[in-house]
Amino acid sequence: MSTCHGLQILGASTSAELDDTYTGIDPRDGSELPGAFHEASDAEIDRAVSAAYQAFDAFRTTTAEQRATLLDTIADTAMAAGDELLQRASAETGHPIERCAAERGRAVSQARLFAEMVREGSWVDARIDHAEPTRQPLPKPDVRSMQLAIGPIAVFGASNFPIAISVLGADTISAFAAGCPVIVKGHPAHPGTCEIAAEIIRTAIAKCDLPADIFSLIHGRSHRVGAELVKHPQLAAAAFTGSLKGGRALFDIANSRPQPIPLYAEMGSVNPIFILPGAMTERSAQIAQGYIDSLTMGVGQFCTNPGMVLGLGEAAGWKDFRESAAELVRQHEPQTMLHCGIHYAYQEGIHRLQHSSGLRQVSRSSREPDETASEAACYLFETTADGLRHNPELYDEVFGPVSTLVNCSSPADLEEFAEQLEGSLTASIHGTEEDLRAHAGLVRILEKKAGRLIFNGYPVGLEICHSIHHGGPYPATCHSHFTSIGTRCINRFVRPVCYQDWPDSALPPELQESNPLGITRIVNGKSSQ
Amino acid sequence: MSTCHGLQILGASTSAELDDTYTGIDPRDGSELPGAFHEASDAEIDRAVSAAYQAFDAFRTTTAEQRATLLDTIADTAMAAGDELLQRASAETGHPIERCAAERGRAVSQARLFAEMVREGSWVDARIDHAEPTRQPLPKPDVRSMQLAIGPIAVFGASNFPIAISVLGADTISAFAAGCPVIVKGHPAHPGTCEIAAEIIRTAIAKCDLPADIFSLIHGRSHRVGAELVKHPQLAAAAFTGSLKGGRALFDIANSRPQPIPLYAEMGSVNPIFILPGAMTERSAQIAQGYIDSLTMGVGQFCTNPGMVLGLGEAAGWKDFRESAAELVRQHEPQTMLHCGIHYAYQEGIHRLQHSSGLRQVSRSSREPDETASEAACYLFETTADGLRHNPELYDEVFGPVSTLVNCSSPADLEEFAEQLEGSLTASIHGTEEDLRAHAGLVRILEKKAGRLIFNGYPVGLEICHSIHHGGPYPATCHSHFTSIGTRCINRFVRPVCYQDWPDSALPPELQESNPLGITRIVNGKSSQ
Repeated sequence: MSTCHGLQILGASTSAELDDTYTGIDPRDGSELPGAFHEASDAEIDRAVSAAYQAFDAFRTTTAEQRATLLDTIADTAMAAGDELLQRASAETGHPIERCAAERGRAVSQARLFAEMVREGSWVDARIDHAEPTRQPLPKPDVRSMQLAIGPIAVFGASNFPIAISVLGADTISAFAAGCPVIVKGHPAHPGTCEIAAEIIRTAIAKCDLPADIFSLIHGRSHRVGAELVKHPQLAAAAFTGSLKGGRALFDIANSRPQPIPLYAEMGSVNPIFILPGAMTERSAQIAQGYIDSLTMGVGQFCTNPGMVLGLGEAAGWKDFRESAAELVRQHEPQTMLHCGIHYAYQEGIHRLQHSSGLRQVSRSSREPDETASEAACYLFETTADGLRHNPELYDEVFGPVSTLVNCSSPADLEEFAEQLEGSLTASIHGTEEDLRAHAGLVRILEKKAGRLIFNGYPVGLEICHSIHHGGPYPATCHSHFTSIGTRCINRFVRPVCYQDWPDSALPPELQESNPLGITRIVNGKSSQ
Repeated sequence: MSTCHGLQILGASTSAELDDTYTGIDPRDGSELPGAFHEASDAEIDRAVSAAYQAFDAFRTTTAEQRATLLDTIADTAMAAGDELLQRASAETGHPIERCAAERGRAVSQARLFAEMVREGSWVDARIDHAEPTRQPLPKPDVRSMQLAIGPIAVFGASNFPIAISVLGADTISAFAAGCPVIVKGHPAHPGTCEIAAEIIRTAIAKCDLPADIFSLIHGRSHRVGAELVKHPQLAAAAFTGSLKGGRALFDIANSRPQPIPLYAEMGSVNPIFILPGAMTERSAQIAQGYIDSLTMGVGQFCTNPGMVLGLGEAAGWKDFRESAAELVRQHEPQTMLHCGIHYAYQEGIHRLQHSSGLRQVSRSSREPDETASEAACYLFETTADGLRHNPELYDEVFGPVSTLVNCSSPADLEEFAEQLEGSLTASIHGTEEDLRAHAGLVRILEKKAGRLIFNGYPVGLEICHSIHHGGPYPATCHSHFTSIGTRCINRFVRPVCYQDWPDSALPPELQESNPLGITRIVNGKSSQ
């Protein structure tokens, strides 16, 4: 494996002011990977953001075609860069190489989808209201508005998607699509992957003749680095994917600034699955299979991992379902978690569940996990409506392949627990259409609790498209209006700007009367092309 | 004038648990107006929000037609209610009755515009991506999403628009349009106007057979009432129009909740006007007239009041402009401010400016203001580029009819000061098209600083339409992505919800395959009707 330089990447230059370094670790054996990564100094953080702000005007006033070309070039460069990225990501996370290749494919197709959207151009929500100079009692001015880029964006990638939700993820790509420079704070669990991905972006920016300063990568294990970045007065927003604790800490810092900025945090959630009686009768074993597959995929390290299944214990099929799920868990092979910190937190979480008075362990992976390889066994617990009622801490997410069956005694129980749920990225319902009609009240509650409602499916796996929403009420995210995946996520990095009685020639092309870009706009309240 | 009951309006009931009361005051003579208004107790605040939450599902699942009818009925009821509302608003603010009538007209046409938008229906941003069950390596699910209402909204109206930006304002109307219940915290400077407006809404809700609990009005002078309201766990968001200090305090409370919620604050701003050389040469006297009209309208008590004019002192016309403006200010008749608190703050602000080393007073209203009638004289100050450079506090807004001319020596000065500006609701440029081309750099800066850019016009006066944006970077607002006026302001009270593989019959009509409402949607990435 090639060595990484470990330096801050500050636009076209590199820097290492501090001697404080750390290395990547292979979680499969705890070995140190090549390359020493330098903690960013406060001065380096300032240089990254200041340079991004200086480059902002040049970047935001590029044409849509220029930005689309940048996104396509990032995709091309990532594919052309060979397997170094995949190998490093695999070594730093324990993910099989195929998973890393799939992640790269996801990042690349995501970049191309944004390129397509930027070229098409209607995403800017252009609106025009024509003047009426003779209106009484006052003339009506000509008013036009569209979304414009807001400024430099800090990106904190996720530990669990070192390629698809990190340097090359939707945060960076959507910020670039909008015309915002990006400063990535590299995840300390995959610093080498971050560096290789950053070099891909740097190469693409140079190929496109865009200002190098629109992108920087800084490293840091300490909270100081992230905090200093979010405090920088020229930063316009930050996007974070990770734990509730980390996200909330950054959210609080962002809000406490003299000039607050949005901190978009996607922090995972419980992702409950409700199984209604019709579905349970029809296909309990099949649902058990889908559920345990979803639970164990990626060693349970997805933010949409199903942490809780709620059903009616007296419904036909519940016992079979429980037995099938228990057996699948027993058969499940322990696998290596992302890093020893996550593994440790998982073990703590399991210990807490094992000692909770409201819970009973149903089964666990038969094979003993290899602790030195940070392996996690899969666990299945169960409780009753009363157990859950008296142990509200069971709603808290444990990150990893563990889930709880909740044996409810009535549809009223289901609704009661749905109402108790905190905000969740997803909620799934298994049922027949008849079930759905009979439990309309449950659906009404879940619409208030989750960002994505899934019917007869499983939460893990997220289609990247225009209609997807990966968000939800707190604590799933800090700003439930926004998604972190899918094309709508560009909305995080733009704000409306309105031009009143502005000369046509001085307007952005999106707002010029002749509609030179041919985009869909709202003209005098009506959709128009 | 009829007496007000002064009670909290909690859905269909009224309540007065506390004996602590206050009255409306006529600022023209300091006299107490009829009616004693009771501070809301914590229990009353809780009842208002809890009842709103209970009514939320019934309200959010009404049809678009039902909500549009509610908005039209509010408009009809406000017009049918006669002049009591106008008389009370005039007495509580010192506004002439014609101004109050114009405000009611504004509120009524705003309600009708939202009704039209809700009936048309495309505002929900419906998006559909069709399934591809045979896609390799994984099938593509059917994914659909749209904006849904988020829950009970607290509304804190503005002191300066007792009808148009208070109980009957865009916050209440857009929340109702989305399907969100509303709890208004009445402004203590116009409690009677709030009560009369609230009774109009209560009547309209009853006429439409909707749940009474979707609307409450609570009174309070103390910070406790607003703070308790924003802290309530079932509140989903709050909208505020007022001072920076008040808005920031509520913003901090909203962010510090265990489950943070958005606090949309519109807090006013400096609203600079830049006069470029071509315009100054062509029509200095005309610009001076428009500027002083804009400055003195409503006794300078508009959040878009122009607090600063920047131009090139050596440009032909600057001296004439300065002289014309100075003379218009001298001729300006002092008028009564909204209430004695605002009047006092204005006098303090003037005192501060008069003693600032960087400023010189150019002129003021010749007639001495009547202090007992809370009258404000108009003031004009001037400074130079250096004066502004060394007195950054001059950028701070003073609420009232005072403005500062900044005599700059070069286009570079103009750009330097534009870059120093904090976020502003508006920025205006007077110029020829040639000026605009020559000062493209200035425009690029102002696009980053303001929500609305005005060419050859004045900031006061806000067209209520689809394209208007009344917002801007902090401190103009706390969330620059959102507007508080214009149809886009509904976005504050909704969030996307996504349905995956959901049966067509169980989807909201906006997302059903046959598009029964005939709205514009994005289907597989393309706009479709």
